[in-house]
Order: sequence, then C-alpha cells, then structure tokens
Amino acid sequence: MGAPPGYRPSAWVHLLHQLPRADFQLRPVPSGFAPREQEYQQALLLVAALAGLGLGLSLIFIAVYLIRFCCCRPPEPPGAKSPPPGGGCVTWSCIAALLVGCAGIGIGFYGNSETSDGVSQLSSALLHANHTLSAIDHLVLETVETLGEAVRTELTTLEEVLEQRTELVAAARAARRQTEAVAQQLRGLAFWQGVPLSPLQVAEDVSFVEEYRWLAYVLLLLLELLVCLFTLLGLAKQSKWLVIVMTVMSLLVLILSWGSMGLEAATAVGLSDFCSNPDTYVLNLTQEETGLSSDILSYYFLCNQAVSNPFQQRLTLSQRALANIHSQLQGLEREAVPQFPSAQKPLLSLEETLNVTEGNFHQLVALLHCRGLHKDYGAALRGLCEDALEGLLFLLLFSLLSAAALATALCSLPRAWALFPPSDDYDDTDDDDPFNPQESKRFVQWQSSI
Amino acid sequence: MGAPPGYRPSAWVHLLHQLPRADFQLRPVPSGFAPREQEYQQALLLVAALAGLGLGLSLIFIAVYLIRFCCCRPPEPPGAKSPPPGGGCVTWSCIAALLVGCAGIGIGFYGNSETSDGVSQLSSALLHANHTLSAIDHLVLETVETLGEAVRTELTTLEEVLEQRTELVAAARAARRQTEAVAQQLRGLAFWQGVPLSPLQVAEDVSFVEEYRWLAYVLLLLLELLVCLFTLLGLAKQSKWLVIVMTVMSLLVLILSWGSMGLEAATAVGLSDFCSNPDTYVLNLTQEETGLSSDILSYYFLCNQAVSNPFQQRLTLSQRALANIHSQLQGLEREAVPQFPSAQKPLLSLEETLNVTEGNFHQLVALLHCRGLHKDYGAALRGLCEDALEGLLFLLLFSLLSAAALATALCSLPRAWALFPPSDDYDDTDDDDPFNPQESKRFVQWQSSI
Repeated sequence: MGAPPGYRPSAWVHLLHQLPRADFQLRPVPSGFAPREQEYQQALLLVAALAGLGLGLSLIFIAVYLIRFCCCRPPEPPGAKSPPPGGGCVTWSCIAALLVGCAGIGIGFYGNSETSDGVSQLSSALLHANHTLSAIDHLVLETVETLGEAVRTELTTLEEVLEQRTELVAAARAARRQTEAVAQQLRGLAFWQGVPLSPLQVAEDVSFVEEYRWLAYVLLLLLELLVCLFTLLGLAKQSKWLVIVMTVMSLLVLILSWGSMGLEAATAVGLSDFCSNPDTYVLNLTQEETGLSSDILSYYFLCNQAVSNPFQQRLTLSQRALANIHSQLQGLEREAVPQFPSAQKPLLSLEETLNVTEGNFHQLVALLHCRGLHKDYGAALRGLCEDALEGLLFLLLFSLLSAAALATALCSLPRAWALFPPSDDYDDTDDDDPFNPQESKRFVQWQSSI
Repeated sequence: MGAPPGYRPSAWVHLLHQLPRADFQLRPVPSGFAPREQEYQQALLLVAALAGLGLGLSLIFIAVYLIRFCCCRPPEPPGAKSPPPGGGCVTWSCIAALLVGCAGIGIGFYGNSETSDGVSQLSSALLHANHTLSAIDHLVLETVETLGEAVRTELTTLEEVLEQRTELVAAARAARRQTEAVAQQLRGLAFWQGVPLSPLQVAEDVSFVEEYRWLAYVLLLLLELLVCLFTLLGLAKQSKWLVIVMTVMSLLVLILSWGSMGLEAATAVGLSDFCSNPDTYVLNLTQEETGLSSDILSYYFLCNQAVSNPFQQRLTLSQRALANIHSQLQGLEREAVPQFPSAQKPLLSLEETLNVTEGNFHQLVALLHCRGLHKDYGAALRGLCEDALEGLLFLLLFSLLSAAALATALCSLPRAWALFPPSDDYDDTDDDDPFNPQESKRFVQWQSSI
C-alpha cells in the first residue's frame, strides 16, 4: 500500500547540495543543514560574499575600461567628421544589453511569482495542519465533556432509579467506571494541548516576511525596467542628461543586483541543504520547540509502515471500553426496563450519547492518523523545496542577466554618449526640423554609427 | 470545528458566471453548467463565434484602411522629397504595437504556465484520491484474508484442542462467528471495488490533453515572438522582403490569435459555470459513472456536519465485534490455558491477529473518513477553478493584446514600407557607406519620418 506520493528532493537540490562549502579559513564544511553552527553560517556568508567579489570585479573592470577609453583615445584630427571606429558596435551592444536586461526582468517576475506560490503553499499547509491539530483538541474536549455530562446526569439518575437491585446498580457503576476510563484515555489523545508552538503563528510569520520579500523584488524589477526603458529612450532621443542620469541609476541597480544575487545564492544553497534531508532537522527542531515525544513526531513526519501509531494502545483501549459500555447498557435495558420503566429514559439518552461518542471516536481516529498531517508536511516541503527553490533559481538567473546587462551598458553608455552631437550647437538650432543641414548631418553621423 | 478550509468560487468565477448567455436563436440560456444540453452548447459556441466576428471585423477594418491608403493617396508632386505627412506616426505606432505584442507574449507565457500548474494540481489530486481508494480496497482485502486465515487455522485448532469442554468450544465458536461477522462487515467497506471509474485513468487523460495544449500555446507564443522580432528587424534594416513576409505571417498569427481567443473565451465561460457550483454536477456525474449510492458520494463531496458517515453503522458493528472477540479470547485464556496448555499457542496467535486487525481497522477508519478524499476534491477544484481559470484569463489577455497589436501592425506595416527608399536605387549604390549623398538623404528622410 505504501505512503501516498510524498516529497522527493529534486535534481536542483542534489546539484546545489553537492557544491563544496568552506568557512572563512577555507576549511571544508560538511553540507548538512545546521543553521546554528558557526562554521555553516560562515559557509553561507562566504557564498554571499562571492557576489560581493563579483560586484568588486565588475566595478574594477568597468572603471579600467572607461579610464582606458577616456585617456587612451587617439587624438581626433581637427575637422574630421568620421565617428570613432567601433561606434556602431558600441551603440548596438548597449541596446542588446538592455534587451537582455528586459528579458531578465521577465524571468525575474516569473521567479518572484513562483517563489511566492511556493511560500504560500507552505503557509496553506501550515494552516491545514493547524486546523487538524485544533480539531483534535476540540473534538477530545467536546467528547470528554459529553461523557462527563452523561456520568453526572444520566448514570446518576440510573443508579438512583435502580438502587433497589444491587446487581443492576453494580452494572451501572461498571458502566460509569468504563465511561470515566474512556474519558481518561481520550484526554491523553489531545497531544497538542498546551504545546507552545502554533503552526498558525508560523504561517502568519512566513506570510508576513514573504509579503515584504515579494514587494522588494517587484520594486527592484520595476526600477530596473524603468532604467532599461529610459536608457533606450535616452539613446533614441540622444538626450545626454537622460543618459547620464540613467548611467548613475544603472550603477545603483548593478549594486542592488549583485546584492540580491548574493542573498539568493546563499538562500538557495542553504535551502538545498535543508531540502536534501529535511526530516531529521524538522523532527529535531519540532521536538525542541514542542517537547513532544519523538515517537509521536516520527509517526507524523515519517508516516511509513516502520513507525507504529503511538496512539494505537489508547485507541484500542477506548474502543474496547466503548464496546463494553454498549453491552452493559444493552444488558441493563433487557433486565431493568421491564421492572423500572423510569430507567428507560436515561438509558436511551445514554445510548444516544454512546452513538455520538462512537462517531466522534471514528473522527478522532481519522484525525489522529498520520496521513492527513503527513500530507500537509509533504505539501509544505514541496512548496518550499520545489516551487520556492525553483523561483529562487529563476531570480538568481535574473540577477545574473541583469548584472551582465548593466555592466555591459555601463561600459557602452559613456562611449555611445560620446558619439552624440555636442550639445552646444544642439541647443542653438531648431530641434524639430529634420531638414536643417546640421540636423541631417547629425543624423547621418549617429545613424552611421549604428 | 467546521470543515477544513476548502474551495470557494473566486470573484472571476462570479463575474464570468453572471454574463448573459444565449443560444443560436438569441433566446437567453440559464448559466448553470450543463454541457450535454444542446442550448448550453449553443451558448458556448456563440461565445466562441464572437471571436470569429471580431476576426471578421478586424480584417474588414484592415482591408478598408489599406485600400483607402493605397487608392486615396494624394498624388506626390514629382521631385518633392518630403515624406507623406504622418509617416513618423505610422512607424512609431508600428513599433509600439509590436512592443505591446511582445508584452502580451510575456503575459501569455505566464498564463500558459499558470494553466499548466492548475491542471497538474488537478491530476495530482486525482492521483492522491486514487491512492486513497486503492489503499482502502487493499486494506480491506488484506484484513479479510488475515481474519479468514485465522478462522481456518487457529480457531479450528482451538476448537479441536478444547473439544472435551463444550462451554469452551461454544466460546470459541462464538469468537469464530464474530470474526466472520467482522470480515463480512469489513468486506462491505471496500466501496470502490468493481467501480468502472478510475481516477488514475482520468488523471492520465487530463495530463495527456494538457501536454498538447501547453505545447500548442508555446508554439503559438514562439511564432508570435519571432514575427515581432523579425518585423522589428525588417523595420530597422528597412528590408522590404522581410517586412512583406512578416506582414503575411502577421496575418496568419492574427487569425490564430482570434481563434485561440474564441476557444479561451468559451472555455473560461464554461469553466466559470462549472466552478460557481461544482458539487451538484460532479456528484451527479460521479453517480452516473460509478453507480455508487448518493449518501456515500455526498459524504465525500460535501464532507460537512450535515452529512453523516455512511459507514458509521458498519464501523461501529465491526468495532463492537472486535471488542467482543477480545473479551472472549481473554476469557478463553483464563479458563482454558491452565487445563489445555496446547491452547496457548493458537490463542496468542489469535490475539496477535486481533491486534493487527485493530491497527488495520483504525487505518481503515482514517482512510474512509471524508477529510482525506474531500481535501483532494478541494485541491482539484482549486487547481481547476483558481489557477487554471486565472491562467486562461491571462491567455485571453494575451490573445486580445496580440490581436490588437497585430491589427495595428498590419495597418501600419504597408505604410511604413511605403516610406522605405525605393529598392532600385537602393541596390545600385554602396550600402555600407553612410556618407554617400544618396544614403544620407535616405537616412534623413527615414529618420525625419520617425
């Protein structure tokens, strides 16, 4: 029969999990997920620092390239109208880079929504689990109260009615004892009562953080989109000030892109370590947080044939006690009702209570079975380790593409800008008349550079 | 306690469900989902036909516009170099339209992946349900076999061992009767046995269709992307033959876009009718297909406090019988073992079987409870009515945007093309020299038109 189709680590998880990790002294660190160990934290920080290194290298490259371009330009012979060689290539590469950046933005939007989907799947699984756990507590409480009420009213009435025949009173007392035993057994089933960890709270915290993460990415993506579009506009309109502003903005977005890449890389690596073997970590963490026994937690987190139901004993005892109460009540009905007609009402009422209790008991068996909670656990893992990780990798691709595109744009923009006609005579003449000689010369110059 | 958070129709479902529907005679049709009724089919076909009407209107508009442009052009004075007025507007509107088309393609990719997600959620819910149903059958079969084996071997041995004391034999016979009664009751719980409908088969069929739908959309999106990019290239390079080929391709993609829009609109309207009240339709359909009683199906499809568990009676009887067997076996152990030590082995083996049966019984109670299957039903509905419908609406938006963009491009392309320099003198001179007088004149002319 086996467990229902659950979570299996994806190829991405395996791939990321196999990357080597090192601490600050570059000693290798085992790739098991251990977020509280200093070495492991250092390994993740080192992954994030790689992005900082990338940022530094790309800034140095851009600076060297631009300095070389500014200082080592061959002196232009006065009066020469030909644009510097390679000007067309520069403008085209700038436009191509910005288009690559735009494609990256599309990928980023997709990745952001995928990550958000995965995290909302995680929260919804946590909400489901919370619903199941609180339903167990509620059902146990309700059933125990119903049984207590039956003991206090109907069984007491019955004993008073039957007090003339001791053997019937003894049977009623036995039923009372069994009922109290059932209530006692059931009370032990509300295992989540008084546990300080609330899945609802965790789900709310996760949603809260995710909301801001999502918003931050949307703002970053929109900022980059605006920078790309305005840069293209600046190139098309040959507006120097727009290109200068957009060069500065590109530098800002480049820094943000590398920063987000560092965060994404560290998160993806950490998540892959978690996702390659989540059971042990989640089991230990939950045990620490809740103080529940490990057999209960293993039952829910593993839910396979090897782990037996820790409530089996209690359930079987309750079930037998309920069956005994039923046969005792039937015996009483046979023996007592002909002689004491007033015993019929409490007996019928007790049988009704017994039926309700048996219904609740079956519901409780269903709720306590590991299938439901384990399915939520599987859904949470799938959300986190499939959708969210996949989205994170798309975001990483976005950051990479946008870093590459922006670096290329930053190299090309000042050179494209140098190809623009000088702004002093640009302002003197009629801008809108494409047929004034200067304008047409300018167009020829710029167009030929493309 | 309430049901776990289930499916609720979204605002989109309500909105689409409230649109008026009419058959071919334009008589209003009720918007309940009834795919087998001719009137309802006509209403959906009419929705799809609206897209055909849109295609016809846009083709007529494009034809009228182009004929007017070709025939009613004011005669150009010979030797006049000024481009026709509005040329710049034409080229820009063409580029803007193609960019809108590209944005639409991005939306289309998102919608396609969203729809695919929703449908795969539906299949995975069906697979889960199939797993639960086959687990119930398997568990019942296994338990009934175990009980039958116990009756054939251990209980027979016990009766043979105890045959000297008739009251003990009677107790063993009672245990045998109870065991057979439990097996009989359990056999009735395998409600899906012999049912001709397999959720696995449905899931496979759905995945198969979805695979081809997904592929068809990806191909359409890529085709449109290529058309947009090559048209932009043709405009940038002023290549007449590329623009002509792309005009023809645009016409083809325009027809495909309107066609897909018709399919999407009809599917979205039908889906909204289904999703606004799925329970009744699914219940009736499943009852027809499976022949199961309506109380079982209502229990699983509704799963609320108003519908009682149809297996309650059988479960309670089995439970009581199991408890009775247990007390009979304990009685036999007390009475018989001191006198007949050879009875101990079959008794212990019987108790072991009883424990296993009680474990299986609890598992069966959990599997039969409506929570698990109803959760799968809710997940399937959410996949279909939330993700898939949302994706479909995005695809509809893509079709709308691309139809508008392509119609604008089709109106503008021939006019932009008319602004290109005539190809005869284009071929005569040196293409690559931007400084030959003709070339610079051409650039001035085209640039000024932008």
